[in-house]
Amino acid sequence: MHKGKRNSITDVPGVTVGHVTLNEKINEEESVCTGVTAILPHAGNWFEQKVPAASFVLNGFGKTAGLVQVDELGVLESPIMLTNTFSVAAVLQGTLDYMLAENPAIGDSTSSLNLVVGECNDSYLNSMRRMAVEPGHAAQAIQSASADFAQGAVGAGKGMICYGVKGGIGSSSRIAEYEDQQFTAGVLALTNFGRKEEIAIANWQAEQSPEKRPDGSVIIIVATDAPLDSRQLKRLSKRAAIGIGRTGTHIHNGSGDIIIAFSTAYTVAHRQQSPFTETRVLRDDHELMAQLFQGVIEATEEAIYQSLFRAATTVGRMGRIVEKGKFL
Amino acid sequence: MHKGKRNSITDVPGVTVGHVTLNEKINEEESVCTGVTAILPHAGNWFEQKVPAASFVLNGFGKTAGLVQVDELGVLESPIMLTNTFSVAAVLQGTLDYMLAENPAIGDSTSSLNLVVGECNDSYLNSMRRMAVEPGHAAQAIQSASADFAQGAVGAGKGMICYGVKGGIGSSSRIAEYEDQQFTAGVLALTNFGRKEEIAIANWQAEQSPEKRPDGSVIIIVATDAPLDSRQLKRLSKRAAIGIGRTGTHIHNGSGDIIIAFSTAYTVAHRQQSPFTETRVLRDDHELMAQLFQGVIEATEEAIYQSLFRAATTVGRMGRIVEKGKFL
Amino acid sequence: MHKGKRNSITDVPGVTVGHVTLNEKINEEESVCTGVTAILPHAGNWFEQKVPAASFVLNGFGKTAGLVQVDELGVLESPIMLTNTFSVAAVLQGTLDYMLAENPAIGDSTSSLNLVVGECNDSYLNSMRRMAVEPGHAAQAIQSASADFAQGAVGAGKGMICYGVKGGIGSSSRIAEYEDQQFTAGVLALTNFGRKEEIAIANWQAEQSPEKRPDGSVIIIVATDAPLDSRQLKRLSKRAAIGIGRTGTHIHNGSGDIIIAFSTAYTVAHRQQSPFTETRVLRDDHELMAQLFQGVIEATEEAIYQSLFRAATTVGRMGRIVEKGKFL
Amino acid sequence: MHKGKRNSITDVPGVTVGHVTLNEKINEEESVCTGVTAILPHAGNWFEQKVPAASFVLNGFGKTAGLVQVDELGVLESPIMLTNTFSVAAVLQGTLDYMLAENPAIGDSTSSLNLVVGECNDSYLNSMRRMAVEPGHAAQAIQSASADFAQGAVGAGKGMICYGVKGGIGSSSRIAEYEDQQFTAGVLALTNFGRKEEIAIANWQAEQSPEKRPDGSVIIIVATDAPLDSRQLKRLSKRAAIGIGRTGTHIHNGSGDIIIAFSTAYTVAHRQQSPFTETRVLRDDHELMAQLFQGVIEATEEAIYQSLFRAATTVGRMGRIVEKGKFL
Repeated sequence: MHKGKRNSITDVPGVTVGHVTLNEKINEEESVCTGVTAILPHAGNWFEQKVPAASFVLNGFGKTAGLVQVDELGVLESPIMLTNTFSVAAVLQGTLDYMLAENPAIGDSTSSLNLVVGECNDSYLNSMRRMAVEPGHAAQAIQSASADFAQGAVGAGKGMICYGVKGGIGSSSRIAEYEDQQFTAGVLALTNFGRKEEIAIANWQAEQSPEKRPDGSVIIIVATDAPLDSRQLKRLSKRAAIGIGRTGTHIHNGSGDIIIAFSTAYTVAHRQQSPFTETRVLRDDHELMAQLFQGVIEATEEAIYQSLFRAATTVGRMGRIVEKGKFL
Repeated sequence: MHKGKRNSITDVPGVTVGHVTLNEKINEEESVCTGVTAILPHAGNWFEQKVPAASFVLNGFGKTAGLVQVDELGVLESPIMLTNTFSVAAVLQGTLDYMLAENPAIGDSTSSLNLVVGECNDSYLNSMRRMAVEPGHAAQAIQSASADFAQGAVGAGKGMICYGVKGGIGSSSRIAEYEDQQFTAGVLALTNFGRKEEIAIANWQAEQSPEKRPDGSVIIIVATDAPLDSRQLKRLSKRAAIGIGRTGTHIHNGSGDIIIAFSTAYTVAHRQQSPFTETRVLRDDHELMAQLFQGVIEATEEAIYQSLFRAATTVGRMGRIVEKGKFL
Repeated sequence: MHKGKRNSITDVPGVTVGHVTLNEKINEEESVCTGVTAILPHAGNWFEQKVPAASFVLNGFGKTAGLVQVDELGVLESPIMLTNTFSVAAVLQGTLDYMLAENPAIGDSTSSLNLVVGECNDSYLNSMRRMAVEPGHAAQAIQSASADFAQGAVGAGKGMICYGVKGGIGSSSRIAEYEDQQFTAGVLALTNFGRKEEIAIANWQAEQSPEKRPDGSVIIIVATDAPLDSRQLKRLSKRAAIGIGRTGTHIHNGSGDIIIAFSTAYTVAHRQQSPFTETRVLRDDHELMAQLFQGVIEATEEAIYQSLFRAATTVGRMGRIVEKGKFL
Repeated sequence: MHKGKRNSITDVPGVTVGHVTLNEKINEEESVCTGVTAILPHAGNWFEQKVPAASFVLNGFGKTAGLVQVDELGVLESPIMLTNTFSVAAVLQGTLDYMLAENPAIGDSTSSLNLVVGECNDSYLNSMRRMAVEPGHAAQAIQSASADFAQGAVGAGKGMICYGVKGGIGSSSRIAEYEDQQFTAGVLALTNFGRKEEIAIANWQAEQSPEKRPDGSVIIIVATDAPLDSRQLKRLSKRAAIGIGRTGTHIHNGSGDIIIAFSTAYTVAHRQQSPFTETRVLRDDHELMAQLFQGVIEATEEAIYQSLFRAATTVGRMGRIVEKGKFL
């Protein structure tokens, strides 16, 4: 399938991504090597204009917050935030602070706010117990979002390891086309999973990592401008799980492998006069849907690989070095 | 069925409950009227000795954190913390701080930690946007836990409203007995749901509440010393949902009605030499299970009512008063 | 809430119900005392014009067929058929025969057909191992469907027992109203569950049943003309579960307590030129939805009670008599 | 990983597989080209000695019966039967007949019986509307079960198409080993899915199929002698889904991609004096579990390929020929 112009999740019009990267050697033992990444579904007010959304948990050894409400109501009303495992609270707090400032009416006893924060464990390189991420970093990541964003060892991906080499943030996209219709499926991956011997790329150099590394996790964000409802977005999410599997991992016990998908094709207003929401959704049996399924699998696979290709060798705590992977 | 000695969740041996209650008038407009409640599954190290657990989401308009991992692994490795909607982050942070201090090994790149924090929206009485709950309050709630704990307008229940009158924390228990076997099912409810005209208690005075109040939520914690695995604890959780329904609510759209159940009958060690976990679980078709089902329904219903009976009239922000409910 | 004109599921325009009742004493030991009930979502071609649908399993000790596809695609493409546990195969076969005859194109290698058959165990009164239901009875039930249908010990309900007395088929409805909008929620119950001491009706005579009876099951069908999608219909289904619980049962281990909900407000065409389905769905936060939630709870509760009120004392195998229940 | 001695699901001790294959040209238009396959979890009485089990629905465009109860109770109490889409009823009936004959007590008002029947649509080659499978074929398939069974175009696989060439039944196994412990994961696949251009095998000849073929389905049965409970077997089932994805399919809308897993390591007795079931389950974080995850992925992938390698070119209705696939 064709890729979008940027080969990125931001090929879906309106979607932007921002990072805050934290990297500092504290002393011989300790280093901050982590960050925050924000995925914004559109440029408007996310609370007032919610987007249809769904999730799928491939392996739930993870601490992602916010999925209960996404699953019940089928909408997302915030950016999707990514960070390290011990910084979920800080990012939750900072995103709440930011959105409360933007929405004075929230919390006046007639509304609350659901935030989605995903995480992976970067404690091999990052002194995760120091919890260097502060609430303010969430707003910074949101405010820095743009269609052109860095990939690799940046943002939430700064300290991540994937298939034994440096992982982090990767992205890719595919275009579904049929007659005069065209839709984009874009994927962003936060990669921190897989053992070096598992990777499905041919001629990839197996890095020598003497130390045992944790099973890690992977968070996949799927965006599309195809008009899909939450049931259909859950179907896309399952295809993203297939894309994860194509890269070689055995979906380890200790890996939080979680997919969140949203559509930008329509919004659900927080408040509205009419009792009804008018929607126009793509038919499940249409060729465009088949292409979206394929596109999500391909873009997930490639987004994971892009996170490797774009990552730089990184030095973290205790002088540990995680090399950039390479082809033989 | 018979009730336990305390008619409380702490009739399940080892389970304790602690509160931090925050209550301060800031000015004519603003008041802090909220808190934190901790439910501890046992007196040992929760991370090292995990307990079997499960959840059921009756209505997912809620922000409870930590359920993804509970559902995948079938265990709970932390206390269950309750607070207001905007303080999930603070309580998550504080519980993490507390548990990291107790467990130096967590986060050293081979393990992470899953925390469970439930919430209801107390913004009618509490100036929720002020976010008065601080991380340190989580540790205080944990450290104050005991088998004798206050009910009503305390802890996370301080600012809650239930069926139009003062709600908060309530608890109850039931005993399943068969031949020489005896098991306890204990329930703790954080009640913030229901419209006054819905309540199923006969002769209950309908309070006059002039203002529109949010749909609210209810969090139910079920504890038992019966040996049940996570699949069976999910079954108990569904019976707790039936108990919620018996009190009269229509399970409103905007209500986060969430049940979390755990067993103290055995623990799953974080680390262990043997590749196997030996368990002895109660048969699904045994009379004791039938009694546990009944007991959970009854104790949930009564725990909700106890939260009303024990609550005191409370004054909150903007001079708002929520009266204690009463029989005619 | 107000009831519909018939206080029945057929108050939802287009919905009809048909029965085949089988009742014959074979010998001193054996009796046929069973049947088939068909609920038709509309008067058109169900395969060509599918209706949005969902299910919720309150307790899955049941053999209902067809839910996997309903959950994936969110539509129902057949009548909902009810019968006894050992006649699922016969009714599946007969419904397939009927629908294949009506739809020559099905099964030509580009389409298949999903049928939904629910069941309860009527083996206390019915010689269930004889499997007296034949495939042709399915077509008979479908063809006899009308808006005016019998309740009580008829159709699939012929041999059922509920709360220790004669159960079977019951139905009820409620009207949601707001300004100029009006929607109906109709419920049909096949009742075969509950122990006599559990029933929540005051002044109800506890029948003396000397023999142990199985836990039984209950199937609830919810129909509405409100425009809801499958996610929302699953929410209605959970409210029906609350309605079941209100009648007193503890949701026994051995009971298959299953709810299936559909909307007649719009259909999804099997074949269509346009790649898109246009839908207009009710907002989750609208007052009409709140009334539908309430209406489903109330109508479920009443449908279960109607199955008792309408049932006649029935004699079955081994001379067993199950009395009609009554008020003291 | 090492394969078992037979490289088949029957490397799991006690598991056997039987087929009935139906193949007859009726006239120029019509042919019977279908069958039944039975997977037996052990050689004893399946109802009296249930095995722990779980399922995962990757894509629910399928008519598999029996999963509701497997998911609730976590056990399997019958063989797993496979056939074509329109013969689910006949096989359900025949399996019921067989098991009732073996178990006179079932259906005496204190017990029922849950049967599991999976299906794929073989209507390209088989005159599926003729419904040539009869109930008696189920018993034949069961009675013919052995550890040595045919693969390819046999049994339920007789008329199936996979990746544009002849599919059907395939099987494979892997051995997990750690110190003195050894467990087997065996997989049986009924393959009827995928488009020819999708297949992930290098140098595989793309067959020219002029006619549009349906999306098809795939049923995966996972057996293991590792002691796992239903929660863990659901985790294995998700790894099997990854194995499906590795073969190249995009998991099409119209494909019923369903996985059922069971363990033979222990049984749950239908009746028992003790209120407790003693179990010893493998730890989720053990190296043996990691190997089982890997083994299930690999064996699923290979079982699907074996179904192609073992299949013979088959002639079906309307003179249609589906070629055996081959390497270039």
